[in-house]
Amino acid sequence: MFRFEQPILFKHCDPAGIVFYPRYFEMMNDCVEAFFDKGVEWPFKDIHKVGAVPTAEIRTRFIAPSKLGDLLVLGLNVTKVGRTSCGIAISAQCDGEVRFQTELTIVNVDNSGKPEPWPEQVKQRFLDQSALA
Amino acid sequence: MFRFEQPILFKHCDPAGIVFYPRYFEMMNDCVEAFFDKGVEWPFKDIHKVGAVPTAEIRTRFIAPSKLGDLLVLGLNVTKVGRTSCGIAISAQCDGEVRFQTELTIVNVDNSGKPEPWPEQVKQRFLDQSALA
Amino acid sequence: MFRFEQPILFKHCDPAGIVFYPRYFEMMNDCVEAFFDKGVEWPFKDIHKVGAVPTAEIRTRFIAPSKLGDLLVLGLNVTKVGRTSCGIAISAQCDGEVRFQTELTIVNVDNSGKPEPWPEQVKQRFLDQSALA
Amino acid sequence: MFRFEQPILFKHCDPAGIVFYPRYFEMMNDCVEAFFDKGVEWPFKDIHKVGAVPTAEIRTRFIAPSKLGDLLVLGLNVTKVGRTSCGIAISAQCDGEVRFQTELTIVNVDNSGKPEPWPEQVKQRFLDQSALA
Repeated sequence: MFRFEQPILFKHCDPAGIVFYPRYFEMMNDCVEAFFDKGVEWPFKDIHKVGAVPTAEIRTRFIAPSKLGDLLVLGLNVTKVGRTSCGIAISAQCDGEVRFQTELTIVNVDNSGKPEPWPEQVKQRFLDQSALA
Repeated sequence: MFRFEQPILFKHCDPAGIVFYPRYFEMMNDCVEAFFDKGVEWPFKDIHKVGAVPTAEIRTRFIAPSKLGDLLVLGLNVTKVGRTSCGIAISAQCDGEVRFQTELTIVNVDNSGKPEPWPEQVKQRFLDQSALA
Repeated sequence: MFRFEQPILFKHCDPAGIVFYPRYFEMMNDCVEAFFDKGVEWPFKDIHKVGAVPTAEIRTRFIAPSKLGDLLVLGLNVTKVGRTSCGIAISAQCDGEVRFQTELTIVNVDNSGKPEPWPEQVKQRFLDQSALA
Repeated sequence: MFRFEQPILFKHCDPAGIVFYPRYFEMMNDCVEAFFDKGVEWPFKDIHKVGAVPTAEIRTRFIAPSKLGDLLVLGLNVTKVGRTSCGIAISAQCDGEVRFQTELTIVNVDNSGKPEPWPEQVKQRFLDQSALA
């Protein structure tokens, strides 16, 4: 599991005093970006020289609200490694309470947007991560 | 179908020149907000005096990228009307090409976050909308 | 004066129920983008093929808070036309009450970020707009 | 000086591959929020139980662009301590190069939005910080 800490800040919260849900998707993107940076060691700044890793599908259940001052811990697991795609699950908790759970599929594409096989070393990192889950 | 136009602006786009996907969730929220305002005639400013309509679950497929200057047309349909929840489907197109499809469930809650039955008139508007789909 | 309407939506508002100020800068950017699109007839999607128009300096006074459901009217005036820069003033009102006032300077740059003289036709539009102020 | 690190992430960057300037204002707000949390020891979650600290005025010069993967270091100084207001200056650097400089004035208000004198301990922290500048 790749672990990512996310404090709930003022900018995340809506007039009801809880996280505005589109902001959660920014957090998920930040978590995936940190995973590629530190877990896969293929940082976004390098990826975007040759292509991109767009999200093809995402499904999220918002289980309990989060509020200003909470510290979320996002746990990311690789659930499926395909030739050009990768399945990821993220669960976010605060003090042992699950706040949201999400599953997403990302795809490796070249600069023209065409799916491209993962570099061998990247695929291996996904598999290593997957085994740790 | 409730129709909502969304031009793709500079703020929506990422270094790859296409919409950054968390921005799509802002658009979906704006579309649901416009639907409550104009389709249901229960605007968010009134809802938030007595409660809220948080999103409990959302699933999205990103089918084709959108870029600066595109005009998206989001079509919203009510797919399920429950006692305290409501199922919504949104499909976004540009020049006849589908860009994303999403299904979400919203819940009517009171100020303490407890699920609350929809007001009768609101439920009726959902059913009217549902019949139009 | 170039006029731009901006309804205050749920996404703009913070836990105090008023607009989170960084969101105002998105609105100003949207207003400048609409001005280039409709007032100058040099849309951002065309500008960004050959360069960009970054903001070099901006100064804003937040005079009164805005809340969910307000309709802001932003009035944009060109205040100074330079060789490679342009001064812009924006005043935002709601029902005759000023909400914020801002002055900004944008610069025309080429793809390498180097200042570039405005195209003659663009400069003329700025001057026409300036005369209308 | 209160020091705040801000890595430039994918979400901050525009189609030109550099930070979209409204995102800088989110960073400034995050920096002020962190300063209240760690430097002043009056966290936003406590402030917002009794009032707020809205920004009344802000002036920013964008000196050089920032790009994906940069690590910005924001240095915050208290420049003026008033009865109900506080002047703050922030300078952001990356590898010794200044990226932006900003001056802002925040005001302490109660729940009705009326200016309120700073709590004595908060004022003292501002003065301590000011002396360190």
